[in-house]
Amino acid sequence: MNFDLDLSIQVLERTPPAMHAMLGGLSEPWVSGTEGPDTFSPFDVVGHLIDGEETDWMPRARIILARGADPRFEPYDRFRHRARNVDRTMSSLLAEFARLRSDNLTELRSWRLGPAELGLPGTHPSLGPVTLRQLLAAWVVHDLEHVAQAARVLAKQYGTEVGPWVPFLPVLTDHPVPRS
Amino acid sequence: MNFDLDLSIQVLERTPPAMHAMLGGLSEPWVSGTEGPDTFSPFDVVGHLIDGEETDWMPRARIILARGADPRFEPYDRFRHRARNVDRTMSSLLAEFARLRSDNLTELRSWRLGPAELGLPGTHPSLGPVTLRQLLAAWVVHDLEHVAQAARVLAKQYGTEVGPWVPFLPVLTDHPVPRS
Repeated sequence: MNFDLDLSIQVLERTPPAMHAMLGGLSEPWVSGTEGPDTFSPFDVVGHLIDGEETDWMPRARIILARGADPRFEPYDRFRHRARNVDRTMSSLLAEFARLRSDNLTELRSWRLGPAELGLPGTHPSLGPVTLRQLLAAWVVHDLEHVAQAARVLAKQYGTEVGPWVPFLPVLTDHPVPRS
Repeated sequence: MNFDLDLSIQVLERTPPAMHAMLGGLSEPWVSGTEGPDTFSPFDVVGHLIDGEETDWMPRARIILARGADPRFEPYDRFRHRARNVDRTMSSLLAEFARLRSDNLTELRSWRLGPAELGLPGTHPSLGPVTLRQLLAAWVVHDLEHVAQAARVLAKQYGTEVGPWVPFLPVLTDHPVPRS
């Protein structure tokens, strides 16, 4: 598929309700389970998506659209959510993520981006030159990455309970060395 | 986590709304994209989950609970949905999945399963001896497997559009030899 703004927004607007449907109201052992030390629980995943709304995708798009001489992005802190959300509940994080995403998509739509804007350059702190089109495509894929991660982390909590079914359920053995 | 019936039902009842939130109303290129020949599109994934409701998990649980001399499961056809759903829409499949799952969970709850029932044996056609507890745990993990798969298959449609972001988005390179 080639990048398409409307098709991208279709996915971006579905992620908060999808995360809410999968994770909202789940009991504690599901919400806080991880794949191992220093990996994300479903609670961490939602916190990380909130960090993305506040500090990653749209702030970087604004840097590109400002058309400055040095459109270099701020580095992104993958663990900002850990301290930020110590006293939060999954329910409140899901609501906050939905609100932030909705506001960001309202702003994104208001820009009425065309091919000229989508081709504008930015500079990623470690990946180097990128375009606005690539940034927005990466936002979509990043959402789906973390939907898949939340499902995988939940699945792994029952890794031994399925007994002999393990070879039929590859989600249990994906990412044998998990990353956050 | 140890198997718990109520915690299992928490996940099982969330899968239809999660799939609906992620996939309902998406445009065609998202719905029909795959990871390659003979792999599932998101449309196929929902069809496969419907097959599971009709022919896999609950029929096998009933075989176990019948306590017959030979509690052997019928083999499961992973591609039943292909012919079955030729003329269907994603919207109608999502509604059918939700209805079948709801009916199955009503029946599951009505059994009021305790440790004695959960330990009853069945015989998987290729995996051999299993228990009802393992069957139900595998049902939960199978749901999450396919939520993760649907998200991964969507993500891969933008595999080249993200440009240099590929190494930061491992969902794009998971399952390099994909299975259905």
